[in-house]
Order: sequence, then C-alpha cells, then structure tokens
Amino acid sequence: MIETPYLLFLGDAPDMLAAKVAIGIRDWRPENAVGQISLEGCGADLGLTEMTLDEGLAAGARTLVIGVANRGGVISEKWKAVLISALEKGYDLASGLHNLLRDEGDLVAAAQTNGRTLHDVRVPTVAYPIATGVKRKGKRCLAVGTDCSVGKMYTAMAMDAEMQERGLKSTFRATGQTGILITGSGVPLDAVIADFMAGSVEYLTPDNDEDHWDMIEGQGSLFHVSYSGVTMALVHGGQPDALILCHEPTRDHMRGLPGYKLKSLSELQDVALTLARVANPDVVVAGISINTQHLSDEDALAYCAKVEAEMGLPTVDPYRHGAGRLVDALAAI
Amino acid sequence: MIETPYLLFLGDAPDMLAAKVAIGIRDWRPENAVGQISLEGCGADLGLTEMTLDEGLAAGARTLVIGVANRGGVISEKWKAVLISALEKGYDLASGLHNLLRDEGDLVAAAQTNGRTLHDVRVPTVAYPIATGVKRKGKRCLAVGTDCSVGKMYTAMAMDAEMQERGLKSTFRATGQTGILITGSGVPLDAVIADFMAGSVEYLTPDNDEDHWDMIEGQGSLFHVSYSGVTMALVHGGQPDALILCHEPTRDHMRGLPGYKLKSLSELQDVALTLARVANPDVVVAGISINTQHLSDEDALAYCAKVEAEMGLPTVDPYRHGAGRLVDALAAI
Repeated sequence: MIETPYLLFLGDAPDMLAAKVAIGIRDWRPENAVGQISLEGCGADLGLTEMTLDEGLAAGARTLVIGVANRGGVISEKWKAVLISALEKGYDLASGLHNLLRDEGDLVAAAQTNGRTLHDVRVPTVAYPIATGVKRKGKRCLAVGTDCSVGKMYTAMAMDAEMQERGLKSTFRATGQTGILITGSGVPLDAVIADFMAGSVEYLTPDNDEDHWDMIEGQGSLFHVSYSGVTMALVHGGQPDALILCHEPTRDHMRGLPGYKLKSLSELQDVALTLARVANPDVVVAGISINTQHLSDEDALAYCAKVEAEMGLPTVDPYRHGAGRLVDALAAI
Repeated sequence: MIETPYLLFLGDAPDMLAAKVAIGIRDWRPENAVGQISLEGCGADLGLTEMTLDEGLAAGARTLVIGVANRGGVISEKWKAVLISALEKGYDLASGLHNLLRDEGDLVAAAQTNGRTLHDVRVPTVAYPIATGVKRKGKRCLAVGTDCSVGKMYTAMAMDAEMQERGLKSTFRATGQTGILITGSGVPLDAVIADFMAGSVEYLTPDNDEDHWDMIEGQGSLFHVSYSGVTMALVHGGQPDALILCHEPTRDHMRGLPGYKLKSLSELQDVALTLARVANPDVVVAGISINTQHLSDEDALAYCAKVEAEMGLPTVDPYRHGAGRLVDALAAI
C-alpha cells in the first residue's frame, strides 16, 4: 500500500502525453492528489494547485508520486534534487518508471537515512501463491479486449465509479502500474513470475461480500501474441462472473504487431467465454465497451448501435456515454 | 548450455520415483550419461555403471547433474561433501531443485575458488525479448494437453527421437527443468517474467531450415486455471504448424484442482486451434497422444481406436505404440 494523499511530480515533462499517470490520478482519484509540483520548462499542467514540497506537506501529502515518464530512461540530476529533498522532508516516493528508484544509490541512501519508503510499482513485493481455482465469494467483472490498449482500465474505472455513485459495493483492482499508482495498491501482473500469475490475481480479488463486485483491470488480449498469457491468467485467476468486451474500431492491425489483423467482437466473445467457463461455468458477457476516440459523435453512436444490434448486448463508450448501461447489466446478473 | 556428458548424482534417493530427472536423461540422452554415483542408503538404481567422481572424470564427464529430488527441500551435509568435492575435481554442477545451488554459500565459494559453474536450471539466465509475432522459417510442433502431466514432454521427446531415427531434421526444445537437464539447454518457462513468456518461446525456437521441426515441450494446459497463462504463451510464442493433443483418460479431476473435471479432446481441439491460428493460420492438429499407463494393453488399444474413430486423427500412446504414426502425420503437412 502506498500512503495517500499524493503530491504529483510532473518534472520537466515535455507535454501532457508524458503525464499519463498524473492525469489518471487526477481524473479517477482526485481526493488522492493535494497538488502538483513542476520543474522549469515543464509542458504539462494538470490544473491542480502548484505547490512546493513544504506546501504539499502542509496540505497533508504523504507520498511524492512520479506522475510522468522520464526522458531517455534516465532519472536526471534535476529530478534527483527534488526527490532527495522530498525524502528528507518526510515524503515516501512512488514510481512506475522502467528504471527503478531502488537502483539509484543516492535515493536509496536518502530513503534509509530518513526512514522513508521507495515504491517501485513495476516490481512485485509479495510472494504470490500458485492459483487454487477454489471458488471465492463475491462477484468479479473483467474487461477483455480484442487488442491491447483499447480502454480496459478506463472501462473498469468508469464502472467502479458508477457503482460507487449508486451506493453499490465495488472495488477497482489494479493489475498495471498506472492503476496501482492511481489507487495505491494492486498487482503488477506483467512483472509476476509465470507460475504465479493466476495466483496473484486470486490474491488480488479475495473472498468478499456476496453483493460486492471487483472491477478487475484487464491486460493484453487473448489475441495479442506478445501478452496473451497474461490475459489468460486474468481470465482464470479472476474467475469472473461477468466479462465486458472492449474494442477500438479504427485500428488496421494489432498494437505493435504489423500484419496481425484484429479479430471481431464475436470471435472474442466465443473464445473468452469458453475459457472463462473453465473457472466459472456461470460467467456471462454483460456488455461491450467501444473506444470511440477516433470517431465523431455521430459515428460513435452509430457504431455502438450497430454493434448492439449485432451482438444483442448493451454497447457504449463509457468515456462518451457513461458506464451506466454496463452497470445496469451487472445489476441484472 | 550445460557441458556434457554428465555423471548422474543419485544421492540417498529413497526410491526410483525420486530419480525422475536421472531416468529422463538415461532414457532420452543415454549418450549424455557416463555413469551414476550414489550415497549409502540410496534406493534408486538406473542400471548405469556406478562410479566415483574420479572414475566419472576419467570417463569424460564434465558436469555432475543432481538427478534426484532432495528430501525436505534441504541440500544435506552428506550431499554437500560430494558436491564440493566434485567442484574441486573440476566438475560443473547442474540442478533443477527448488532450493538453489547459488543460495548455498559453501557451494558458491567452492565454485569460485575452482572456476566452475553452478547451473540452477529453474532460473532464467537470459534477458528474453518481448514477442514480436514475426513469422519464422522452419516448422514447429507443440504438444498441448487436456491437463498438466499427461505426457506432453514424453510425446515431444518420442517424436524427436523418431524423427532423428528417420534422418529427418528435428530438435527437442525444452521448456521445463527436467527437459533442460536432459538436453543441456532450454527455457525454464514457468520461472520467466509474465511479459517475456512468449518472447522466450520465440527465442527458443528461432528461424531454421524450412524442413526442420522444433518439437516444443508443452507446459500446463489451456484448461488448467493455475498454469494456463504459461500454455497460452507457448501457443502464441511457438507459432506451431502442428499441434498434438495429449490426454490421460483415467483422471476424475484436473491435477491439483479437485472439483475441476477434465475437458474433452474435442473441446481442447476447438480452443487450441482457435488460439493457435492467431499466430499461424495454417496450423493443424496432426495427431493425438494418449497416456495409457493405467490401462491394460487391450484397453489401451481399444481406447486409442475409439478416439481415432471419433476424432479422425492418428491416435497412439507413444510409449506403448511408438511415435511413428505421429511423425507420419507431420511428414504429410
């Protein structure tokens, strides 16, 4: 668990694209962010209060979260000065960067001297068990995609938020570094040892109230040859009661795989249900989430209507149209 | 790569069951084993020449392979004396034990002092890439099972041996510690980090002659909720041209999963082909391998004949009936 609330470190991010993690925290857990702190030349602005480290502390911040990607995979000396100062003032640090905080001797030394914690959320810190497949209490919903990066995290986040708003029991379960930083906990599934992947998902989604839903963040795709094993572990370890099919309709090939065409939602439904039924014979596909960011308002609605007619399932873009109809579908299970 | 040939260390194994690795080496790579070495009270006997460490060296051995499971997960002092002596005399050590050679300070020290290598084959030593999905030259065959431990390694080994005997180009590709110790190389897939699983399989089965077959050792099962992600990575990373379906007909539940019934060969065929076609649209199921160890000769033949009639595919127990018909099926692809 990462201690909240956060001060969000934007560094010298060239633009908003580099600030994906910070944007995610602002949008999904605004109560976790007391403000932002930038360096000279920063091209990203979250619209939060700009603070010094001292002002952040005064506002209650416990952890300085690196909310941006770094340039060239190096934690620069300019960043270091702020990070070390933060440790000295009493902040923990949290990062999803590829190059780890724990590999930087000066950060490790400053953390030890000041009794602070370095959180590298890409690295598992738990010895996960082998999955048992034993049926757990409570309900689970998993977003699965025709491809990577089609909006699975967003879908689960939006459904969780809608559940909360309705006063229903729901927990977003993060399986990637962005989700872990946003919520403060989770499993960095892509960094787990193969034999323990499904077990780590069981660990993440334990027994719960019968009317509680885990909204599990999906990863990869059963059709993406680089990462399908990770997806498979979610389908079996998560033993979902409900699947949401996710799709981005404008791609001409699978992400990072030129020559691999996208499969259809209907093909995804068939294979995902077949496999998910191994762990939970009662699993259903509850709805469809379309990422319509590259479509006009009119085309987005038309596309969703067409898919809904073809598949016979509620179909929305939760970003544009809200997640209400997907949550309605869960409530009916 | 582990240097061959080996002297096989049987320790104080209580019985032959504990000597699975040594038996595998004797049966599949007899040319890799110059002899065996036992401690007092050893209940396992491979029928190889019993040798001292010096006799093993004189016979050409380069590596002392721990061919047995240890008791209680501890490398005992009795074992240590032999292992350290072996390092001093010039042997490397190789082990698939859960507790690692590299975690034993006295073994590490002896290896360093004498310039020898400790091979813990459960631990990856390569930084595997992310899978690219790019089509590779040459042919690949993957055994997939309705469950774990149904004879997938044996099937691939037997097919490889039959190919060699016919003078055809074939390489057994090990993906587990037993297979790695038998052949001296491979990928310990269950210990690879999730994101790199499929990439490690691509690495293991690179471009080759167009008429060369990789016989890839399968792991887990698409239907086994604990390990299905590992299997999925083999199906996509291996981009097989041919699948062999493996089954053990007498189990009443999945291995280690009470309450999980086995799926049928027909269900396995459907889902494995659907997923394998993502990476290779031309993949076919070439044949079926039945593990008939718990059936009489007569029942074994009858069962295979029944499956063959139902599935329309050559069906044998390669241990009892030979792998010839499975290799015939590959030759026809």
